[in-house]
Amino acid sequence: SKRYSITLLPGDGIGPEVISVAKNVLTLAASLEGIEFTFQEMPMGGAALDLTGVPLPDETLFAAKQSDAVLLGAIGGYKWDANEKHLKPETGLLKIREGLKVFANLRPATVLPQLVDASTLKKEVAEGVDVMVVRELTGGIYFGKPRGFGKDENGAEIGFNTEVYAKYEIDRIARVAFETARKRRGKICSVDKANVLEASMFWRKCIVEISSEYPDVEISHMYVDNAAMQLVRNPKQFDTIVTNNIFGDILSDEASMITGSIGMLPSASLGESGPGLFEPIHGSAPDIAGQDKANPLATVLSAAMLLKYGLGEESAAKRIEAAVLDTLNKGFRTGDIYSSGTKLVGCKEMGEEVLKSV
Amino acid sequence: SKRYSITLLPGDGIGPEVISVAKNVLTLAASLEGIEFTFQEMPMGGAALDLTGVPLPDETLFAAKQSDAVLLGAIGGYKWDANEKHLKPETGLLKIREGLKVFANLRPATVLPQLVDASTLKKEVAEGVDVMVVRELTGGIYFGKPRGFGKDENGAEIGFNTEVYAKYEIDRIARVAFETARKRRGKICSVDKANVLEASMFWRKCIVEISSEYPDVEISHMYVDNAAMQLVRNPKQFDTIVTNNIFGDILSDEASMITGSIGMLPSASLGESGPGLFEPIHGSAPDIAGQDKANPLATVLSAAMLLKYGLGEESAAKRIEAAVLDTLNKGFRTGDIYSSGTKLVGCKEMGEEVLKSV
Ligand SMILES: CC(C)[C@H](C(=O)O)[C@@H](O)C(=O)O
Ligand SMILES: CC(C)[C@H](C(=O)O)[C@@H](O)C(=O)O
Repeated sequence: SKRYSITLLPGDGIGPEVISVAKNVLTLAASLEGIEFTFQEMPMGGAALDLTGVPLPDETLFAAKQSDAVLLGAIGGYKWDANEKHLKPETGLLKIREGLKVFANLRPATVLPQLVDASTLKKEVAEGVDVMVVRELTGGIYFGKPRGFGKDENGAEIGFNTEVYAKYEIDRIARVAFETARKRRGKICSVDKANVLEASMFWRKCIVEISSEYPDVEISHMYVDNAAMQLVRNPKQFDTIVTNNIFGDILSDEASMITGSIGMLPSASLGESGPGLFEPIHGSAPDIAGQDKANPLATVLSAAMLLKYGLGEESAAKRIEAAVLDTLNKGFRTGDIYSSGTKLVGCKEMGEEVLKSV
Repeated sequence: SKRYSITLLPGDGIGPEVISVAKNVLTLAASLEGIEFTFQEMPMGGAALDLTGVPLPDETLFAAKQSDAVLLGAIGGYKWDANEKHLKPETGLLKIREGLKVFANLRPATVLPQLVDASTLKKEVAEGVDVMVVRELTGGIYFGKPRGFGKDENGAEIGFNTEVYAKYEIDRIARVAFETARKRRGKICSVDKANVLEASMFWRKCIVEISSEYPDVEISHMYVDNAAMQLVRNPKQFDTIVTNNIFGDILSDEASMITGSIGMLPSASLGESGPGLFEPIHGSAPDIAGQDKANPLATVLSAAMLLKYGLGEESAAKRIEAAVLDTLNKGFRTGDIYSSGTKLVGCKEMGEEVLKSV
């Protein structure tokens, strides 16, 4: 039987609850395909700050690097909000992305027929939405230098950051995006602000060059302000979106809210080689932490992405996806996706129901 | 009688059509309040490129600076899309903003009861939305230096821009935003990415400092990715949003699309002193240019903002706003806001109907 080692990073807030569910589902689905896991749980985010004084201990990054894939719950909370930058849970997240070199962040936003009413968009606009945002994750203004505080030439106090992309960074995210689009509906929309920013003009030039390697994929370009509008006007026009780190941060969250069920949405962050990082797109929800109210399905579906994109274990991944749909079809809902006529369950019970369907 | 001089910049596409309507409405509404205008029409954008070879001729900027207010139609079109940066219509727009030093861009996004069905959002989510986005317009990554193309320390080709804000730039936009919120529902939400960017941490620090001058205004802070979500989830939670140039570009367009009727939305760009720049938020719509199909109401309402914010002529502004509502109540609609049971009219006829109600 095949063996893989998985690093679990429960993190903060509802993180431990949803990771515990996802671990069980992952274990069962894999075992039915003859796969065995060894799990190692490591501290990260606020939990690591409290335990070790830093948001990403060296031991955690080391363990993550040694493993075959990393599954993260959620990080952050009011408690650490006022911390200095290097002591913020978010800094731990940026550091593990950088440390694992996971430059490609895949964020699907799908409206399931069972949950179309959860969207604030009209039914005819929301139904059938199936967008994949491919966000560059280890470059751009998030990591660009110089950055910091200082004075300008007139002595005025300033704060500054650098948006910078190198050709190889754009080329490699473009390839991931084109490969992704090819496996989907064959359409890619590259989002930039090339009418104003040089970094975006360069982005567009590189994307156009790479597009010639993928003549079967239809490429279009859109300015980021227009993309933010079009996601509201007619999200169904999009198949795969590729964009930089900051625009991807904004647009993938907008797209996820358009589905109305962000408690359902997983993500995968992949590098050239080495372990991928898989996590729900929702946050740590400190207000409901420890109350067995969280929706574990985003993390369960992140475990499916781990199997598919991280380990290439498609059959086990499909088992999990099918089990989630099955559980929804039976009417089970956590509070965030509850509507009258469905059965309200907690985080644990939702996990048990999914296990029954795996 | 009072006299003001107005520079008209019809620009490209549907620009000339909508400016022509707005000019007539402006003239009538003002004359009823004892105000006279002298108008000077100047080339700008693609029209100026074709005529003079540059998107903002010196004569145009000079005339604009000498006048009491500037009303712009729209700029841009396929014809000039592939132009080099300094020969793009958009560059003309950035230059006139910079030249007039109009650092504060006010973009209201209002859902009128008559047009609530135009929104792709469910009626209960869209109705009553009334957000004012106050966008910083002459700083940040749009204008920051260094910018351009080059090589990094390993010799890789790069494209780069600088996001930079000085304290005085943040302070002055904050004051405009707080004053604006005070005249509205007294709530302001400052949007940034202070969990990642130093420029945003600095932004937040300055906003917090200025907020102490406005104890009557309730201030909150939100990360830009969350703001993009919250605009879709529950746009009614917002009163006034203040944010930087690029986030404001994205969020104000998203907010405008949430209303469903971007053909209705005006904007004002204001400086410390000197003439303001007023323009509809929609583009030049080259596909319907010259066909008498454009909705002139966004430009008509921009003329109302010109009277109110540019000249302090509130009564004349109210005449225009009331005339627009009256015309909508009578059922007149251009194609972009048409629904069954209303009367479809062209750009000119819409203008004539508004004139009847002024
Ligand atoms: C927490 C924060 C640093 C992070 C980001 O901006 O990348 C989050 O918003 C995300 O999208 O994963
Ligand atoms: C045309 C473009 C340069 C401009 C901007 O980005 O500011 C436009 O999108 C706007 O919002 O007025």
